[in-house]
Amino acid sequence: MEPLSVKRVTLTDAFWTRTQELVRREMIPYQWEALNDRLPDASPSFCMHNFRAAGLLGQRRREQGKQYTAPVYSYRGFDVWPEDPAHPAEDQFYGYVFQDTDLYKWIEAVAYSLAVHPDPELEKIADGAIDAVCGAQLENGYLDTYYILTGMDRAFTDLGSFHELYCLGHLLEAAVAYYEATGKDKLLGAARRFADLVDEIFGPEPEKCKGYPGHEIAEMALARLYEATGEEKYLRLSKFFLDQRGTEPNYFDQEEERNARRDGKPWRPSTDPMHNAYTQSHRPVREQDEAVGHAVRAGYLYSGMADAARLTGDRTLADACRRLWRSVTREKLYITGGVGGTVSGEAFSFPYDLPNDTAYSETCAAIALVFFARRMLQMEARSEYADVMELALYNTVLSGMALDGKSFFYVNPLEVLPEACHKDYRVRHVKPVRQKWFGCACCPPNLARMVGSVGAYAYTESADTLWFHLYMSGSLTKTVGDKELQVEVCTEMPWEGRTEVTVHAPEAVTATLAFRIPGWCGPDRASVTATGGKRRELRDGYLYLTGTWTGEERVTLDFPMEIRVMTADPRVREDTGKAAVTRGPVVYCAEEADNGPSLQLYRLDMARMDRASVEDADIQGTPLRVLTVPAKKLRADADALYTPYRAPKEEDAALRLIPYYAWANRGEGEMRVWFRV
Amino acid sequence: MEPLSVKRVTLTDAFWTRTQELVRREMIPYQWEALNDRLPDASPSFCMHNFRAAGLLGQRRREQGKQYTAPVYSYRGFDVWPEDPAHPAEDQFYGYVFQDTDLYKWIEAVAYSLAVHPDPELEKIADGAIDAVCGAQLENGYLDTYYILTGMDRAFTDLGSFHELYCLGHLLEAAVAYYEATGKDKLLGAARRFADLVDEIFGPEPEKCKGYPGHEIAEMALARLYEATGEEKYLRLSKFFLDQRGTEPNYFDQEEERNARRDGKPWRPSTDPMHNAYTQSHRPVREQDEAVGHAVRAGYLYSGMADAARLTGDRTLADACRRLWRSVTREKLYITGGVGGTVSGEAFSFPYDLPNDTAYSETCAAIALVFFARRMLQMEARSEYADVMELALYNTVLSGMALDGKSFFYVNPLEVLPEACHKDYRVRHVKPVRQKWFGCACCPPNLARMVGSVGAYAYTESADTLWFHLYMSGSLTKTVGDKELQVEVCTEMPWEGRTEVTVHAPEAVTATLAFRIPGWCGPDRASVTATGGKRRELRDGYLYLTGTWTGEERVTLDFPMEIRVMTADPRVREDTGKAAVTRGPVVYCAEEADNGPSLQLYRLDMARMDRASVEDADIQGTPLRVLTVPAKKLRADADALYTPYRAPKEEDAALRLIPYYAWANRGEGEMRVWFRV
Repeated sequence: MEPLSVKRVTLTDAFWTRTQELVRREMIPYQWEALNDRLPDASPSFCMHNFRAAGLLGQRRREQGKQYTAPVYSYRGFDVWPEDPAHPAEDQFYGYVFQDTDLYKWIEAVAYSLAVHPDPELEKIADGAIDAVCGAQLENGYLDTYYILTGMDRAFTDLGSFHELYCLGHLLEAAVAYYEATGKDKLLGAARRFADLVDEIFGPEPEKCKGYPGHEIAEMALARLYEATGEEKYLRLSKFFLDQRGTEPNYFDQEEERNARRDGKPWRPSTDPMHNAYTQSHRPVREQDEAVGHAVRAGYLYSGMADAARLTGDRTLADACRRLWRSVTREKLYITGGVGGTVSGEAFSFPYDLPNDTAYSETCAAIALVFFARRMLQMEARSEYADVMELALYNTVLSGMALDGKSFFYVNPLEVLPEACHKDYRVRHVKPVRQKWFGCACCPPNLARMVGSVGAYAYTESADTLWFHLYMSGSLTKTVGDKELQVEVCTEMPWEGRTEVTVHAPEAVTATLAFRIPGWCGPDRASVTATGGKRRELRDGYLYLTGTWTGEERVTLDFPMEIRVMTADPRVREDTGKAAVTRGPVVYCAEEADNGPSLQLYRLDMARMDRASVEDADIQGTPLRVLTVPAKKLRADADALYTPYRAPKEEDAALRLIPYYAWANRGEGEMRVWFRV
Repeated sequence: MEPLSVKRVTLTDAFWTRTQELVRREMIPYQWEALNDRLPDASPSFCMHNFRAAGLLGQRRREQGKQYTAPVYSYRGFDVWPEDPAHPAEDQFYGYVFQDTDLYKWIEAVAYSLAVHPDPELEKIADGAIDAVCGAQLENGYLDTYYILTGMDRAFTDLGSFHELYCLGHLLEAAVAYYEATGKDKLLGAARRFADLVDEIFGPEPEKCKGYPGHEIAEMALARLYEATGEEKYLRLSKFFLDQRGTEPNYFDQEEERNARRDGKPWRPSTDPMHNAYTQSHRPVREQDEAVGHAVRAGYLYSGMADAARLTGDRTLADACRRLWRSVTREKLYITGGVGGTVSGEAFSFPYDLPNDTAYSETCAAIALVFFARRMLQMEARSEYADVMELALYNTVLSGMALDGKSFFYVNPLEVLPEACHKDYRVRHVKPVRQKWFGCACCPPNLARMVGSVGAYAYTESADTLWFHLYMSGSLTKTVGDKELQVEVCTEMPWEGRTEVTVHAPEAVTATLAFRIPGWCGPDRASVTATGGKRRELRDGYLYLTGTWTGEERVTLDFPMEIRVMTADPRVREDTGKAAVTRGPVVYCAEEADNGPSLQLYRLDMARMDRASVEDADIQGTPLRVLTVPAKKLRADADALYTPYRAPKEEDAALRLIPYYAWANRGEGEMRVWFRV
């Protein structure tokens, strides 16, 4: 099963084209300014600066030959900032060690945008950026401005922490996307040269390095490069990284010891058997069964594992993917589709530990979960993968950006009290309003590439089958043998559950269309009608319609979208006795702007829940659906801090709920997803 | 109104004499071993080491005169530890800057113990310790081993952080207590000499230093020294410290700037107007109306303010005390009598922010609250002060020690999940089992002195009135003019609400006995009968019985002690919709040992609460009363992480509750005070 490339899916969907337009009109230009340090009120990125500085270095070296000695800086920390941000030295590296990836993500986002919306001016800017990237590349193919600028003697010596192979991964993703969108292969060539160099250095051969990426992504990026180029060695390298990860003796421990010895620093082996869980290298990947560590890394690793399992038919790897999927979705997933319960290590917490107020739930981690889900779908069409993919997309991914596309969340909590954000160390990482840009700006460009390519997540195909995973208005062509099916989807998702699919077959085609029955509806309540007497089979959450498609046919999907009150597994301590409200794939929350402060005073009134209603509304000019649900509001009139129990003094109230992704677009205020019932 | 000295109250109370015996038999000997670094499995204290090292220095200086140069150490941090703990250098300081105070608290505890239980051997050990203290004192009276050993050039230059005047305060408390208990004035003399030196250096005169203690206690200790010696200058010095605190320009800011300049370090003034709240020096004490900052410091400061207000008749200071009392008890008090909602700064959090699992609620802070409450009672007899004093004593103070007196809590949470303590950064400060000793061992010796002197908290007196604040079995003599009342109290507090008070008057005496009506009972349900037709007046929560007491008279107090289900002000977000169970002054909790894991599954069943029962039990041989309360237990059988709401599947259950102070005496397990209702 293959996904469809961005280019093959034409979106006309009101919801997603609006969001993609924000990416095209607001985020891409804004981020370009950010990458060039031209935003007056945001911390400088130094990303393009670093590429230019590395290019300058190469130019000097070419001009002066061996006489030229590159500057060596004594401080080579994880991040380097100039004393005076307005006057960075022209030949020095600044920012985090992974700063290059901000540009790569941006190029990838531009590629998706160009694929569906040609824009010569934007393409010219991107070509210029690509020239800067290629100008920074060393002759042997090496391409990471941090080491190029701070000293190549340490290249590949700190894989555990310094994100070098992470930079390779994002470069590959960008290069393939740009090539597929524009046909231009300059960046792809540079990316391949870097991949070739890494392939020469790393591998199972005795003389080669046995390391692997500290921050994963190269695994799935190499699989993608293999799929784009057909070059098997890239898949082999990906598999090598996966096979090597977490084997004993642990590479990162060895590396740390080596570096400590080199730097004359003390080193002591950790006594915690889980100390490498942060990088998912605590044990071999095939033996992992609990999602642990940094949540973005984990999502990227699991995605790479799913790619490799599918492309190599590796069953033990596939089983590990299934176990890890279950660990994430059965024990460690927020109802908003977010993952990563703790700021400590930006990581998964222990099972069922899903705090709402101190949640981390990083935007990038939700994106990583979408990647993982799509790859599980490529491995096997089970609707649970698409359900989670949809949940993450419509809630935590979108929560990462403001409705105007101009500010961003890194952290997506499920409960916010602004006073606590300002005063309480436990939620120091939680911002009550979105920020314009971050020093560590992983999320905004990641969001841009995710939203820009969302069409590629709606479908997968095999020779004669087309799977519908997400419902978005638009069209595509499915080729079966030498014939074609023109498919048009018309829907009002995520607001209405009815979807019309029109299939136009100029010549009769025997094919299967497989439609996901969303988990929020379920097969009993779903109704699917199709013209022309197709064979129907319900399997793993998909309705398969098989038969001959002729002329214009029509499939009508009706997934009743009701207001649903959801509860959590009682083992989720933070939510015991509470409930959250959803409708279709959208999770709702209450904001102070609609309901006043002290949201903890409300509880959902289940006895009157049949009076809950939905209506059209808009926030900051963006149309959406809001809910009004019956509630009881506790009177806060206690005359002492602690008083004997009496029947609670409650009054009838109505809670106005807005989609979770739309919170914090009306200034600072309380927000809450879970309510007492 | 004066408190009664420890010596005047003979306790025969089953509950408290058992606890005091633990102090005498377990804690005092154990802590002496700790102070001398003779405990094999505890981190060394270096406390006695430091006094001996300072004494050695003095001896060398006396022997060698000016030729002797004291060692100067380049590192003078807040805490200093030897590279090899088994071989500390004999002339160097180790531990925290306030390490001296561990001995002072121990001496104070010993004093209270000797006052009620003479023990020549213990007294000899204490005399030896006092010799070591006096041997360390400089000729000018200075006495802080940290500066004596690391360089006197910096004495009094870092009042904000380095606890020098805090050491003075604890020295004074110990010296007065030891003098009152034994009549020996050697330590008192040393303490006065140090106080005299500080009085020469600090004061309102233009040439004197305008600083004040960074960690308060000297304020109340100087008031105590004044009361013990009659020397007014000590009260003036206390008042100076209070008056000076928080005035502009802020002394600690000036000091920081000076020290930065001295050390050639950059310094920038803070832009946060509350940055000095940690030390309660953000504004003048008379203008403070919210309890903020480090909770122990705050409690000690407010105690000192109450002393000064009472002793000088300062009304604005008394009003500030009342406002701060209200802030603590109306907005920032745990139901267990604990204070300090956040580990960040070991401090008060913002109003109504009382998290149960991440609570700090330091044992010392509860002790500080007892001090504050007792001093408010000396200012005005209002039962709310005694109610809170009793609550803190019977719950959070006692929770600080194990039932066997051999291990201690620094932090007293209201909800514990051991897995979280091991894995979750948010509760890294919370220990699921008591520790034997701490590197920063403020709580254990503070507990010892608190428990040892608890009899002194039960009563205050004026010329003709005796107030009963706490009920403990025992006896005392109240002198009225030249006559005497012999008072005997017989009670089973905290388990039974009935108390018999027998008054024996060899000669007829006209006097008032004032009995506190506990808040947990209330005047409507309390019944007080007295022989001999006394005039009765109920005022501010006390029943005043005035008249002539002749021969043997009897007052019977009956305070029905029922199982009470309590709720919090709904503004306490963490407890909204929840309740806690108390009986008399004792707060109850559930432990995993009795109720199995996943305590969040239980809710209190209010409809059947009349079936709640109380029974005698014991934990580790210690008798106490446990409760059984009707509950519902949620079945944890969800088949997905999130499922649509349905009426909760609950089964009838019984929650066995034990006194909060007795938790964590049966190994590691879950604990919880607040339950859903």
